[in-house]
Amino acid sequence: MQRTSFLSHLECGWCGATYDADRLWNLCPACERPLLARYDLEAARQAFPREALRGREPTLWRYTEMLPVRDPAYRLTLGEGFTPLLPFKRLGARLGLTHLYAKDEGLNPTASFKARGLCMAVSRAAELGVSRLAIPTAGNAGSALAAYAARAGIPAHVFAPADVPPVFVAEMRALGAEVTLVEGLITDAARFVREGVAAGRWFDVSTLKEPYRVEGKKTMGYELAEQFGWRLPDVIVYPTGGGTGLVGMWKAFAEMEALGWIDDKRPRMVSVQSAGCAPIVRAFQQGADTAEPWENAATIADGLRVPAAVGDFLILRAIRESGGTAVAVSDDEIRAAQREIGAQEGVFVAPEAAATWAAVQHLVRDAWIAPDERVVLFLTGSGLKYTHLVQDA
Amino acid sequence: MQRTSFLSHLECGWCGATYDADRLWNLCPACERPLLARYDLEAARQAFPREALRGREPTLWRYTEMLPVRDPAYRLTLGEGFTPLLPFKRLGARLGLTHLYAKDEGLNPTASFKARGLCMAVSRAAELGVSRLAIPTAGNAGSALAAYAARAGIPAHVFAPADVPPVFVAEMRALGAEVTLVEGLITDAARFVREGVAAGRWFDVSTLKEPYRVEGKKTMGYELAEQFGWRLPDVIVYPTGGGTGLVGMWKAFAEMEALGWIDDKRPRMVSVQSAGCAPIVRAFQQGADTAEPWENAATIADGLRVPAAVGDFLILRAIRESGGTAVAVSDDEIRAAQREIGAQEGVFVAPEAAATWAAVQHLVRDAWIAPDERVVLFLTGSGLKYTHLVQDA
Ligand SMILES: [Zn+2]
Ligand SMILES: [Zn+2]
Repeated sequence: MQRTSFLSHLECGWCGATYDADRLWNLCPACERPLLARYDLEAARQAFPREALRGREPTLWRYTEMLPVRDPAYRLTLGEGFTPLLPFKRLGARLGLTHLYAKDEGLNPTASFKARGLCMAVSRAAELGVSRLAIPTAGNAGSALAAYAARAGIPAHVFAPADVPPVFVAEMRALGAEVTLVEGLITDAARFVREGVAAGRWFDVSTLKEPYRVEGKKTMGYELAEQFGWRLPDVIVYPTGGGTGLVGMWKAFAEMEALGWIDDKRPRMVSVQSAGCAPIVRAFQQGADTAEPWENAATIADGLRVPAAVGDFLILRAIRESGGTAVAVSDDEIRAAQREIGAQEGVFVAPEAAATWAAVQHLVRDAWIAPDERVVLFLTGSGLKYTHLVQDA
Repeated sequence: MQRTSFLSHLECGWCGATYDADRLWNLCPACERPLLARYDLEAARQAFPREALRGREPTLWRYTEMLPVRDPAYRLTLGEGFTPLLPFKRLGARLGLTHLYAKDEGLNPTASFKARGLCMAVSRAAELGVSRLAIPTAGNAGSALAAYAARAGIPAHVFAPADVPPVFVAEMRALGAEVTLVEGLITDAARFVREGVAAGRWFDVSTLKEPYRVEGKKTMGYELAEQFGWRLPDVIVYPTGGGTGLVGMWKAFAEMEALGWIDDKRPRMVSVQSAGCAPIVRAFQQGADTAEPWENAATIADGLRVPAAVGDFLILRAIRESGGTAVAVSDDEIRAAQREIGAQEGVFVAPEAAATWAAVQHLVRDAWIAPDERVVLFLTGSGLKYTHLVQDA
């Protein structure tokens, strides 16, 4: 039984201009903002009832009809997605929360949620004929690109800050990628990628700078709905660097409502950042529509060291529309949270992931979360790539 | 809908003595060999058709009825099992193999197949009232024990060779385990665990020294059957240290035939070891029923550095009954295989896992595998814990 994508066109998230989805695009040519994939939701509503999911493969490809890859031959898989939703009873009890859960994204290929986005971006790029890919990365996105590019047989070039933990470099090279270390932050690495784009050397798969990584990430939202029996949780706590996952889930909820899969109740979306790099938190508190770049970004959570996000306005929009909030936590809180999640629940998480547990403690203390609410922490990656942070544990 | 375990009793794999399954046991008190769990297969054949699996959770717990934990409250989960079965088209083509597959066990919690066995052993130990657990380890088993013991709220003590890669120590400690480094090999670490058992300090969950790790591992066999549409592959290539997985899969095939799920066709089981520690290969070639301990074991594949396996006779029996074989590969072959799997297929694997691809090349060259046979490599763990082997890649 062939499953057909209902992809119809691309639409700019800022100016609303529309584009042919079967051509290659990066940002909107009109306004330099992210393009989003749109689907024929009316047709999909008839052809793709949620009951069709029963018995499908436990990967993000179970939602094929709402994903952008048309030809099954290009649907690359390494087993990404459909990650476990784990009850965190012991940690929940500490705060008096009766329904605390964690989505363990560390069980994705290359041990982070980045696999979802790059799986989709590389699959679609391959389908549209791209022959060379590049990315700037704090680590995990580069690893995920390397894996899917290898799977597709497409060369990958990764640009990372020189202080990226060596485990990432080893992993990316073991996966066949060409790795260049760059002085500075991920924004500096991005400059090298842009120069190569200008010279026609490769296609840029930076977060939200092409339309399909967000399509991979949105499957976190589909999975949450399915795993909770089509009743979304009350609060989603999400560590925010580039913010693609938060934007993607928000998009997924709207799509699922249009499909008739869920009602109009939405979770409150909480964006968690590090106090050493919190542009979204600051913009949220100031009531701004976009975020000013953060100066002198510094945090042990490499994935949160993103001074400026091209999707800032989409992140802020989702937080506000949902009645959510944004929270900054300290590196010390992150370290403590990492130890607690490991020793109490049995999951060794990356510092970005640990930040969610630190944030929940603030939100319960402030009575922003009620004891009986269903709360989901997004554990975006495994701690295995950050053992340098716990060597002396 | 409650799912009930059909566990009936324990039976010694060597002398056949039977024991009460609802009491705690390590080795057979009569002969000091491994005990195996037995189920009421006649009752299960009626109550548990394979169609019952449709729509169940994508973890090893989908096979609950044929697993030993009786009370659902003790079925610990971190999302283990139901790992992807990936076509390896590019590597297959290199050898003229049209149906080469890999089962990526690196997507288990703690990034290795050890999660399956320890999930089951810790769950059942908790159900039977154990209050403290210990294990000797080359690394991955200790990490898996740490994770599930944390999940269960039971203290865990891990004994590892002093040269265990530091990433494992960091991971185990982050998961709350007490870690002791021991001069020597895993067999030396095992002595410390035995001493603690004698002193009544903890329960020993060493490979095959309690009956339930093999029950977790056998789910690899159930999954293979289900993922291949109930037609087992022709050849299974399995890296063999303690050998629990190979023994477990062989047991699973017999159970599934008794359940009426598969016919009597069996895969040929291939045991892969390192040339620097190949007790099973030597015993197989000599036609022996048990394996002599290997002197001066040395290999980069820590998980294969097991000079003596308590389940040796079960491993050798399964290989022979299946018409299989045993192959030793060099460390250089392992390194090359690791690079090829990464760059060609997008999976960064542990050296033990890489050994399977090295072995297949021997077997195809020797015409022991035919071009159209369905061959499965067991990629038992992720390369993320072995980046010290590829730092200069
Ligand atoms: Zn625009
Ligand atoms: Zn016996």
